Amino acid sequence: MIKSLSLWNNGPARRAILDYVSVVTSPDSPDFVPPADRIATFDNDGTLWCEKPAYTQLFFAIQRLKELAAADPNLLEQAGYKAAANGDLAYFASLYPGNLTELRQLLFDTHAGMDQTEFVAQAAAFLSKVMHPRYGVPFKQLTYQPMVQLIRYLEAHDFKVFIVTAGGMSFVRPVSEEIYGISRERVIGSNTTFETRMTDQGPVLYRRPGLIDPIGEGLGKPVNIELHIGRKPILAAGNADGDIHMLWYSETNAYKSLQLLVHHDDAEREYAYDVGAEKALQLAAGHGWQLISMKRDFIQVFPFS
Amino acid sequence: MIKSLSLWNNGPARRAILDYVSVVTSPDSPDFVPPADRIATFDNDGTLWCEKPAYTQLFFAIQRLKELAAADPNLLEQAGYKAAANGDLAYFASLYPGNLTELRQLLFDTHAGMDQTEFVAQAAAFLSKVMHPRYGVPFKQLTYQPMVQLIRYLEAHDFKVFIVTAGGMSFVRPVSEEIYGISRERVIGSNTTFETRMTDQGPVLYRRPGLIDPIGEGLGKPVNIELHIGRKPILAAGNADGDIHMLWYSETNAYKSLQLLVHHDDAEREYAYDVGAEKALQLAAGHGWQLISMKRDFIQVFPFS
Repeated sequence: MIKSLSLWNNGPARRAILDYVSVVTSPDSPDFVPPADRIATFDNDGTLWCEKPAYTQLFFAIQRLKELAAADPNLLEQAGYKAAANGDLAYFASLYPGNLTELRQLLFDTHAGMDQTEFVAQAAAFLSKVMHPRYGVPFKQLTYQPMVQLIRYLEAHDFKVFIVTAGGMSFVRPVSEEIYGISRERVIGSNTTFETRMTDQGPVLYRRPGLIDPIGEGLGKPVNIELHIGRKPILAAGNADGDIHMLWYSETNAYKSLQLLVHHDDAEREYAYDVGAEKALQLAAGHGWQLISMKRDFIQVFPFS
Repeated sequence: MIKSLSLWNNGPARRAILDYVSVVTSPDSPDFVPPADRIATFDNDGTLWCEKPAYTQLFFAIQRLKELAAADPNLLEQAGYKAAANGDLAYFASLYPGNLTELRQLLFDTHAGMDQTEFVAQAAAFLSKVMHPRYGVPFKQLTYQPMVQLIRYLEAHDFKVFIVTAGGMSFVRPVSEEIYGISRERVIGSNTTFETRMTDQGPVLYRRPGLIDPIGEGLGKPVNIELHIGRKPILAAGNADGDIHMLWYSETNAYKSLQLLVHHDDAEREYAYDVGAEKALQLAAGHGWQLISMKRDFIQVFPFS
């Protein structure tokens, strides 16, 4: 018999997970949860895949900005296009959180007006072919293997596992089945609005400018959970301040619940940073959210390491 | 062995379904479809449950309008509230399609500002307790049993079955598992927007005025399918003009696909009407959409009949 969560060191995080799953799935347990209510929601960037040196989707947008500028060099007069052409990640970092409007336009609207099938193909190609600057492997390989193993473990105990990302839903779906074993309809996130256009070939889906309101971060995560799932999760996992509301929402479940907060403390194998997670880390103790130390708890980090 | 689709007479509809499922699920078939792509989408009103003498959700809204008017009799000066108090269904029918704004306000905004948990409880109570005016049984029992059997049959062949309704998503979900065996997250539809409010008890979901754009009818059905599923259906079933785009969208699938159009031609056991389905019925032959005659194809209609 394979040891459960074999990629996890036997520390507090692994034990908290094993104990929790045991008490909510044992029929005789006072904390038993019926399978239909075993909903687990996972953030993506920084929780399931690497988000450094910048969000994966930012690299994708930079590629697109470069393509657009190559077709129309006048665009290089705009700061965002110029930064993309120069590989200036600092420019994009400077937009957060002060100039979200421009950041969203650069991230999402640059793919507006496009046939959704074409977008999905571009996202899949990017994630499969473009190399991460530090690890030299395609971006889609930057998944945390212990977390993927946790997803399998939960599914083996009749949990339904969803990804609830602040990033683009349509950006993650093309690879979610391959890299996480999570089917597309269980990937929820921010997204551009869509429209159906009638063509000679019948109805075709197009991407419109503008994002669905609210975006899938912070207060928007419980909204997206209700829209796409219709049940409160009993288990939620995140890593940053944008996950606070999802973790807290799960905590209000009438069933016994578990919240997990991935802590990036492993500069050697991954990255060490608390920026963007200060509030979440501060709240964790008071709320009883279980920290996952990448350094201490993960035996392996990436599939290639 | 139980006969497949035993509630269906052995006519063209039953044979078309059996033939189709056979060719897309037989591994040696040139038309084989991998399980992940076996997506089926069903309209709800008039396709899975009865929509006469008026949409079920209209009866629910009328009950709400009455409650609000009982608390504030001044509201009776407004036509919609007055019609509700008098049980004047014709007034609401007169709003369609000329005054959709008022109709939507009456149907949806009357539950705005409400805690979503409370709304779900009210919807469940209504569907379970209020009686249909003709059949004298709770509204939730007005489901077409051959269609429910078809859902089970498709699931037994590794289809994922979704409900894609123009009606309220949150109105159908509270009973979808009980009456259709379809889990909540597979019910997609029109809906009010949500917001998360921070309270002393943590984040709580509330219903906001205004509907998510687009609503889940016509051109909005493919949009909702992409948002909630991310795959084009290979099988789609509807009954009215609002389903045309969903049926057509399914038809553009690169895989062999099947479209079903429920025809209400059984005045004795249900209702006979083509109003609101004229275009769909007209398009059916040219597109090869398979008609389902309730009179000819259904051995049984409702669970109580």
